[in-house]
Amino acid sequence: MSFLYKGSPERGAQWARLFAQKAPDMPFHVWPETGDPAKVRYLAAWQPPEDPARTLPNLEVVFSVGAGVDQFDLSGVPGHIPVVRMIEPGIVEGMVEYVTHAVLTIHRDLIDYHLQQQHQTWNPLPVRAASSRRIGVLGLGVLGTAVLERLKLFGFACAGWSRSGREIEGVECYAGASTLDSFLARTDILICLLPLTDATRSVLNTALFNKLPRGASLIQTGRGPHLNQDDLLTALASGQLQNAILDVTNPEPLPPTHPLWTHPHVRITPHIASETRPDSAVEVVLENLRRHREGLPMIGQIDRSRGY
Amino acid sequence: MSFLYKGSPERGAQWARLFAQKAPDMPFHVWPETGDPAKVRYLAAWQPPEDPARTLPNLEVVFSVGAGVDQFDLSGVPGHIPVVRMIEPGIVEGMVEYVTHAVLTIHRDLIDYHLQQQHQTWNPLPVRAASSRRIGVLGLGVLGTAVLERLKLFGFACAGWSRSGREIEGVECYAGASTLDSFLARTDILICLLPLTDATRSVLNTALFNKLPRGASLIQTGRGPHLNQDDLLTALASGQLQNAILDVTNPEPLPPTHPLWTHPHVRITPHIASETRPDSAVEVVLENLRRHREGLPMIGQIDRSRGY
Repeated sequence: MSFLYKGSPERGAQWARLFAQKAPDMPFHVWPETGDPAKVRYLAAWQPPEDPARTLPNLEVVFSVGAGVDQFDLSGVPGHIPVVRMIEPGIVEGMVEYVTHAVLTIHRDLIDYHLQQQHQTWNPLPVRAASSRRIGVLGLGVLGTAVLERLKLFGFACAGWSRSGREIEGVECYAGASTLDSFLARTDILICLLPLTDATRSVLNTALFNKLPRGASLIQTGRGPHLNQDDLLTALASGQLQNAILDVTNPEPLPPTHPLWTHPHVRITPHIASETRPDSAVEVVLENLRRHREGLPMIGQIDRSRGY
Repeated sequence: MSFLYKGSPERGAQWARLFAQKAPDMPFHVWPETGDPAKVRYLAAWQPPEDPARTLPNLEVVFSVGAGVDQFDLSGVPGHIPVVRMIEPGIVEGMVEYVTHAVLTIHRDLIDYHLQQQHQTWNPLPVRAASSRRIGVLGLGVLGTAVLERLKLFGFACAGWSRSGREIEGVECYAGASTLDSFLARTDILICLLPLTDATRSVLNTALFNKLPRGASLIQTGRGPHLNQDDLLTALASGQLQNAILDVTNPEPLPPTHPLWTHPHVRITPHIASETRPDSAVEVVLENLRRHREGLPMIGQIDRSRGY
């Protein structure tokens, strides 16, 4: 029985060290070194190898090393093999930090203040109370929920939308496609934390932007293909949107000539909002191995019919 | 008996409206209109009038409309008259928002990422866990305490220093001058929320910066004269300090030619971190009038021997 890691070699080396400490009985390999492929029961990967059923005939569990599995080609993974996405405290902590920062950047006009600084201009702008600022999170998974739990402590008017509905104390929760327009109409700062599926590809487009109040802002922390970047530029040009803070783009890296880079009301970071931290990730994987051996559901196991 | 407001006319008009609603029996005047000066029992001001004892002979309480009283010339206010600074929820909310944003800006390298964006560069930087980032707040009054209570929820390693000592759960509290060096030696991000007194004027200087770990950062949300701005530029130039986020300067506005405006690792905002909000400020003033009539201590009443 062995564990195979397929991702960046640096990260693989970190995982190998952590496995050596915490699970010294489990043989650990970093792709392309696999040991005897027939002995590989567990695979952690950003992208599985081609034809995994043939390459790794005794595979029992596939772990994504990212919070999503949209980058994964699931078609070659036999249907009976559980696929588990990464839900670990480091990913959650990073996302809560990033989104809190982005919301406060917009709420406190810090993009405008930085533009004023570039012109050596000292000009206080009116302050709005947090209670009058309406935050809306698209997607109420582990990340969306954690973000709202933090933002509500600041006193913002918080709401969230999900396909299937959630309950979060102190947060107005909207469920299902029929409620999306009402959710958007009351949202000053929209945060995308949706999974990427065929249903959510290009969901951030002109039609959606036009349902927000004029002058709303976007925080895009989902996946690049959620956003139609041309529609975003149009909405910023018309004033329908005021600011956009993007941690993901399409493609990544964003090409140097792309106009989003230089838009004064756009902030771009290189997909750093949240990343798997090897120490807490290995803890969660080992806990999931225990659960799997005992026949319990694993943390982050996906429903392959929904794709997340 | 009447109440006199001396500050900006716009704010005075807002206070007058709120008094008319909430305390319709109290005659309210906005300076320079005072009604019969002998009837003025209460004064709310940014700066008292000259020789208040003569101008307003029956004054009973002086309220500062700011969180500090350092701008106040207290020498003309007779010693038996209580002086009350403004402690109201709006000031606290604004400061918690501003400092949280500033800490996350530094913690998540967002000044560097914005410089990279200006060069269309997509370059992820290593992430540090919040638990390994050491935050230190100078000054543990209402604002410093509220800031630490919020920052500790992010998992930062939090400490605070004050002259007389405080206890805050989950925060390492240092008390008195003899502990200042140890406090500074363990602080990666230093936040100034001290009162401005003769003892704290220019406290943020080369000697203090050199006691911080190399590459530390400063968040200055106290008062402009706490900081020696030339020393700050020197510390940034040598790499002793990495970043500085300043909401207050000396003088204000900062002159357009000042080199801090254009330093790539300095962010400047025009004294907007936190401001008195008329609605919650009037609530607190009315509560204090009740307390004063009943002989109870008022919220924010200062100790004139300490100056805060």
